[in-house]
Amino acid sequence: MENTFAIPTLGPCEVESPLAAFHDHEGKTIDFVEDSNCILVDDTVSAVRAHAARGGECLALELAGPRERIFFEPARVRVGIVTCGGLCPGLNNVIRSLVIAAEWHYRVEKVFGFRYGYAGLAKPDGEVLLDAESVSEIHKLGGTVLGSSRGPQDVEQMVDRLEKLGISILFVIGGDGSMRGALAMAEVVRRRRLKLAIVGIPKTIDNDLQFMDQSFGYQTAFGEAVRAIDCAHREAKGAPHGIGLVKLMGRHSGFIACAAALASGDANFVLIPEVPFRLEGPRGLLAVLQRRLERRQHAVIVVAEGAGQDLLAQSGEERDASGNVKLQDIGLFLADRIKSHFAQVAFEANLKYIDPSYIIRSVPANPADAVLCTSLGLNAVHGAMCGKTEMMLGMWHRRLVHVPIHQAIAARNRVDPTGTLWLSVLGATGQPLAFV
Amino acid sequence: MENTFAIPTLGPCEVESPLAAFHDHEGKTIDFVEDSNCILVDDTVSAVRAHAARGGECLALELAGPRERIFFEPARVRVGIVTCGGLCPGLNNVIRSLVIAAEWHYRVEKVFGFRYGYAGLAKPDGEVLLDAESVSEIHKLGGTVLGSSRGPQDVEQMVDRLEKLGISILFVIGGDGSMRGALAMAEVVRRRRLKLAIVGIPKTIDNDLQFMDQSFGYQTAFGEAVRAIDCAHREAKGAPHGIGLVKLMGRHSGFIACAAALASGDANFVLIPEVPFRLEGPRGLLAVLQRRLERRQHAVIVVAEGAGQDLLAQSGEERDASGNVKLQDIGLFLADRIKSHFAQVAFEANLKYIDPSYIIRSVPANPADAVLCTSLGLNAVHGAMCGKTEMMLGMWHRRLVHVPIHQAIAARNRVDPTGTLWLSVLGATGQPLAFV
Amino acid sequence: MENTFAIPTLGPCEVESPLAAFHDHEGKTIDFVEDSNCILVDDTVSAVRAHAARGGECLALELAGPRERIFFEPARVRVGIVTCGGLCPGLNNVIRSLVIAAEWHYRVEKVFGFRYGYAGLAKPDGEVLLDAESVSEIHKLGGTVLGSSRGPQDVEQMVDRLEKLGISILFVIGGDGSMRGALAMAEVVRRRRLKLAIVGIPKTIDNDLQFMDQSFGYQTAFGEAVRAIDCAHREAKGAPHGIGLVKLMGRHSGFIACAAALASGDANFVLIPEVPFRLEGPRGLLAVLQRRLERRQHAVIVVAEGAGQDLLAQSGEERDASGNVKLQDIGLFLADRIKSHFAQVAFEANLKYIDPSYIIRSVPANPADAVLCTSLGLNAVHGAMCGKTEMMLGMWHRRLVHVPIHQAIAARNRVDPTGTLWLSVLGATGQPLAFV
Amino acid sequence: MENTFAIPTLGPCEVESPLAAFHDHEGKTIDFVEDSNCILVDDTVSAVRAHAARGGECLALELAGPRERIFFEPARVRVGIVTCGGLCPGLNNVIRSLVIAAEWHYRVEKVFGFRYGYAGLAKPDGEVLLDAESVSEIHKLGGTVLGSSRGPQDVEQMVDRLEKLGISILFVIGGDGSMRGALAMAEVVRRRRLKLAIVGIPKTIDNDLQFMDQSFGYQTAFGEAVRAIDCAHREAKGAPHGIGLVKLMGRHSGFIACAAALASGDANFVLIPEVPFRLEGPRGLLAVLQRRLERRQHAVIVVAEGAGQDLLAQSGEERDASGNVKLQDIGLFLADRIKSHFAQVAFEANLKYIDPSYIIRSVPANPADAVLCTSLGLNAVHGAMCGKTEMMLGMWHRRLVHVPIHQAIAARNRVDPTGTLWLSVLGATGQPLAFV
Repeated sequence: MENTFAIPTLGPCEVESPLAAFHDHEGKTIDFVEDSNCILVDDTVSAVRAHAARGGECLALELAGPRERIFFEPARVRVGIVTCGGLCPGLNNVIRSLVIAAEWHYRVEKVFGFRYGYAGLAKPDGEVLLDAESVSEIHKLGGTVLGSSRGPQDVEQMVDRLEKLGISILFVIGGDGSMRGALAMAEVVRRRRLKLAIVGIPKTIDNDLQFMDQSFGYQTAFGEAVRAIDCAHREAKGAPHGIGLVKLMGRHSGFIACAAALASGDANFVLIPEVPFRLEGPRGLLAVLQRRLERRQHAVIVVAEGAGQDLLAQSGEERDASGNVKLQDIGLFLADRIKSHFAQVAFEANLKYIDPSYIIRSVPANPADAVLCTSLGLNAVHGAMCGKTEMMLGMWHRRLVHVPIHQAIAARNRVDPTGTLWLSVLGATGQPLAFV
Repeated sequence: MENTFAIPTLGPCEVESPLAAFHDHEGKTIDFVEDSNCILVDDTVSAVRAHAARGGECLALELAGPRERIFFEPARVRVGIVTCGGLCPGLNNVIRSLVIAAEWHYRVEKVFGFRYGYAGLAKPDGEVLLDAESVSEIHKLGGTVLGSSRGPQDVEQMVDRLEKLGISILFVIGGDGSMRGALAMAEVVRRRRLKLAIVGIPKTIDNDLQFMDQSFGYQTAFGEAVRAIDCAHREAKGAPHGIGLVKLMGRHSGFIACAAALASGDANFVLIPEVPFRLEGPRGLLAVLQRRLERRQHAVIVVAEGAGQDLLAQSGEERDASGNVKLQDIGLFLADRIKSHFAQVAFEANLKYIDPSYIIRSVPANPADAVLCTSLGLNAVHGAMCGKTEMMLGMWHRRLVHVPIHQAIAARNRVDPTGTLWLSVLGATGQPLAFV
Repeated sequence: MENTFAIPTLGPCEVESPLAAFHDHEGKTIDFVEDSNCILVDDTVSAVRAHAARGGECLALELAGPRERIFFEPARVRVGIVTCGGLCPGLNNVIRSLVIAAEWHYRVEKVFGFRYGYAGLAKPDGEVLLDAESVSEIHKLGGTVLGSSRGPQDVEQMVDRLEKLGISILFVIGGDGSMRGALAMAEVVRRRRLKLAIVGIPKTIDNDLQFMDQSFGYQTAFGEAVRAIDCAHREAKGAPHGIGLVKLMGRHSGFIACAAALASGDANFVLIPEVPFRLEGPRGLLAVLQRRLERRQHAVIVVAEGAGQDLLAQSGEERDASGNVKLQDIGLFLADRIKSHFAQVAFEANLKYIDPSYIIRSVPANPADAVLCTSLGLNAVHGAMCGKTEMMLGMWHRRLVHVPIHQAIAARNRVDPTGTLWLSVLGATGQPLAFV
Repeated sequence: MENTFAIPTLGPCEVESPLAAFHDHEGKTIDFVEDSNCILVDDTVSAVRAHAARGGECLALELAGPRERIFFEPARVRVGIVTCGGLCPGLNNVIRSLVIAAEWHYRVEKVFGFRYGYAGLAKPDGEVLLDAESVSEIHKLGGTVLGSSRGPQDVEQMVDRLEKLGISILFVIGGDGSMRGALAMAEVVRRRRLKLAIVGIPKTIDNDLQFMDQSFGYQTAFGEAVRAIDCAHREAKGAPHGIGLVKLMGRHSGFIACAAALASGDANFVLIPEVPFRLEGPRGLLAVLQRRLERRQHAVIVVAEGAGQDLLAQSGEERDASGNVKLQDIGLFLADRIKSHFAQVAFEANLKYIDPSYIIRSVPANPADAVLCTSLGLNAVHGAMCGKTEMMLGMWHRRLVHVPIHQAIAARNRVDPTGTLWLSVLGATGQPLAFV
């Protein structure tokens, strides 16, 4: 009846897992997961009934977790780890968890870390040895001890390097661009018939990845954003008709802006990519903002960096002529437009603009993200030891699952403008459902 | 095919929700939820297949969320809120969210808060009026602005008071004891045929409630616990053969201890109620601890308050004779036993005992818990406005659901000694699967 | 022998202080301070000897503290409080301390707070009543509950308002501009022969005020700045040849930049207004930076907003022609210059720019600043009750003192480029003594 | 005229300091300090006048700082560092600063750290090599990377070890006990005519050391204590007649309790060793507490561990009979007495006891303490390089000074019960001047 997102593997699992030796106080072994343990993508009763009615299939995802039999002989396994793209809270936690799981649970031969993303894979001497000792305190620091970089590298060259180092498992911690790089490497691996598993741990601070309930670092990020909103609130209340304007991450989705606004309770307007807004007109942002200032003396606006791109596009001409690059930034654009509006109508208003930028992404993971990163790392190792490849860890309805990389990156999560998250934001801010 | 946990209601929903007036930028209304929107309790493919095979039913839970038609006429609704039992991070967030949702989304007539738990319900003058203004900053403080108390009150008297104040909806924020109190009131309400909905928002810092993936305050609590473990780690490393011993909450379940240990990465032994342990013998805790000190010079032990109760019971006799109450506390008991062990074997060891106690539960909610509390409050209001009663909010596979109170309190969540959480803890600590 | 900075007073102190009724467990009264209790401005042995040798005078400052006899009859005193200029951590703590000291120690009749700085003094209805209850939790919030504003107001009008409200004591919490406003009011007060004391509590987040060892909010501010530097460090280490550039406050003095760099330990270059630097040439910043990147792969630069103004001035022409306002900001200017330098020499470098801006000044005071603010408020009340006026609180060699406002604002504290603070910064950063 | 506390030295300073090569942007050298640069211990005008009148001497302290000529040839200097006694925030910062100053400013040959206090000095293999790289991130961790221990070791043996390792300078970071140990070693050194300087960096989290305005770690400690008080406050307000009781450090002095209470603003009673108090009687603590509960419903009590020792002594007999050790702890003693009082008078009261213990001392230094530690380390190196010995760093009226160890440990700082600190506490708490 089901149709799982099938996970490619390097071959049959014929080695007994070292974890099979574990027994609890009653002599029971640990709970192994089987590949057939899948959960429904749509778990509503109506969906199940519909499928049953037409005798059809329903999509399901394979659960992550330790398997009783694995593909690789642990003692001969060399593991590689690479972190790609922008910083995100928790990178070091994931690295640490991968190393500890590989070393402690499976006793693999060696773990290499590649320096500065794919760049470290594409050249000699780009790797360092990692062990439990050397990673023991790294999770207390933000950033990544391996370094990261953006952009692609020569795929053949990277696979050459992996072969040369005798790597059996490569863990790629990165966003959708890096996952595409991982698929490209996997293709070469397949062509060369290498026994090399490539497993992704998805990194997206914006929380916009499919089949990933909540990506690591996201909680920490919106938690930091709350601090910025709190400051904006104090600035707004500290001046006559004060306006605090905070720009947050979120190029394609407004999750950070929404969650930070909900947690803070101090935001009065939240602007996200998913919900277009107008500036002008009696129901436009400027008029609504002015009415709020008249009534309440202050206002806090949270804007995701990807919001209002249509407005920026409209103002494109002026931008080109003046050569002023400021307008490409929705935060600065809004700050300008708000200031000039209140100047025009001769209404005293004091706007303070806060762009916390890197401060949000380079902090250490908070404890909840730390736990999530530990699970992701541990389960990525469980999956990879079974020779699963071209897959990444996902989280679906709170359980860790295996997702084929190509499926995971096919689309993005976005805030639903008629859904309950956005409804909560409206309740928390008191803003209208739309500025139209 | 399904068999929902049916939610009692006060009557049919014949009033249009004020939320029906909301429209987004494209003119669409918000996504209303219908009572028939249910999700499976067991969403594994094998379970569904098994049910299908025998044409049977499967358990399902009703999704929380706004309904298009509601039971109460909002303008006549008076809401009561009461917080019961011990403090938990997020109480003020839930109160705030209830007030804002009732006021902003439904424009109810009045919201009362009862002071000091059920005690405030059982006497005149036990209530205060709450509105959006008065609750606007309370979520930045720990504790509960309403105050709380433990223990039951006269049920008839409480319902008298609710009638007298004209309350239509009572929100009870509390643990399983308080939920039993809510059921007792509901019984009187039914007998008196009152139009009074009683809805629970479950509070359990230990995260041990059924049908509640993650209870509010839990994340904040284990996050604070990480600080205590970090201090224990510094103390342990700061002295020759230093031992840091931290007692954490968790009377029946070790979730806080496990999560804090995973997040911290510094714990070397985690002791929880679900996994019995021995002190003596070559594989007992004392011997394993000593070997670790010899090898690594320091150790950090995290013990949940409910762990090792069998050991305390064994030592009961000595306790009675000496009259020393210390041994009822597993933290102090362990500290004593460890000290006397090392004294006996003449091995220098320096134990530092940390009992963070109330420091963990009376802090403000962290941003992630703040978001959760906001959702719980908002959805509790949605449900209550529909006349649903004797139910509480739950979270199942990441979605908020309605759960009959009597079902929710029938059993407890516990850490599975052969499951992946405990396996992660073993990997993070390096401790044996069992001290046997 | 001494020559105190004499403090103007409204008249002789003939009222017994209510504090005279206090007795400790041995029956002793509290330690009252007399106006003759002064401390030397220059307390070095050589200075004292020099003075003694020539029989001369030496400058001394009057100690703050409770006096046994005061000028005002407490029960008739109405107090006004106003906060002016930009936000600074601790404003609410000072307000709270003034209110509590006035109410609890002296039992004054009333305390008014004026809204939005001098603007609230210049118009009717600009005041609110404050009491111990209403200020009890305000110190936990950043900003100022009274609001603030910049710029002067009509002086006669403000004094009219003070007279109308029957104010005997006005506390001005503000920077040097506000202190000039206070002096202007005091002149009118003198001319009108009012019994109105005007006492300043100096606010300068940059810590650049004379006779003020350490201004309130400064510690909190540089503490927050450390967080930004830490993020810059993670960003710098996270990318190939990563450069983290952080702009901090400090228009005229580099105290925040120096202290934050010392506390952080992660800054590699600190640029402050007091120490000019060159960009070009073999010893210029760009070349030194490049050498560091070659050697160490990453670098963190901390720049005070007032640094390098000569460089900005030089680049003035290009700025005018292009109409690009960015170059007025040393942070953005440096970011541009560094990027274009490495582009020119075709050296891969990844610069991340962080401008924490308002995030640093609108947070709540840290505990040490909270203690300082409490003392400043309390002692300001002690002084004002004695009819002292046109003076402000200062701190000299760790003791609180009275300083005539006109003396205090005559010059600024600056970092000494050959002194020990700067030497410490050089040691901590490893940067050259000068980029010349 | 002056009479400095003379600092013993190993001999004349005939080596040019490497710092003499430093020049700023105008070609000026750094500001060197001369031994004759002293500041008055009593800098009041009246003291100076009194001395002048009788042609007498006045006590003065030598300023710390870099000297132009030093005693040791830097390239041959081996430095030893040892941390002794209990943990204190900032230990790692001081270690780091000593290493960086020795390495960067003076280019010494080697720096050794001794493991676990004097124990590491008294045995072979007790040392590790330290350099700027290995200490670069240690200041972000609490505790001490060297480890610490209590208690004396064989003095001859320690000096043997120092000789054997060729140590020229030993830095002892510790409390008064450790300073006595340092003096004992110095005596042996003198007897053996070694060229070995022993310099102390005083560590006292209680801030009770003479000639030390503010000891490192103290600010961090009371800052952490504020968190505990805040929790106590929430607990107190969260229950009917709630009492939050917090025990803080302070065996001989109440500085931490006073500062934490002032910073918090939530304490209603502060009990310190310097101010005796009664429990019984109409003005005793119990009666005053009860009246507060009646009036305000809740109360927060902060007690320093050394407070009320006379009360404990009185209750000595009962203690001996029962064998119950609890009564030796003032926190538990008070908790018991308060509970039994309210039980006796049948007054509902809910006491929550918080003993944050090690949580306060093992956290990392806050930024202000970090700056202080950096200065202490740097200046200790400056002094030691001049062959100064048997001295420790002090801080007097905000300047770092050299103090002979035997003078520094001759007495303790204590809170003055009639002074302004205690007066501030009374104002902040509203408690009576004494419970008599």
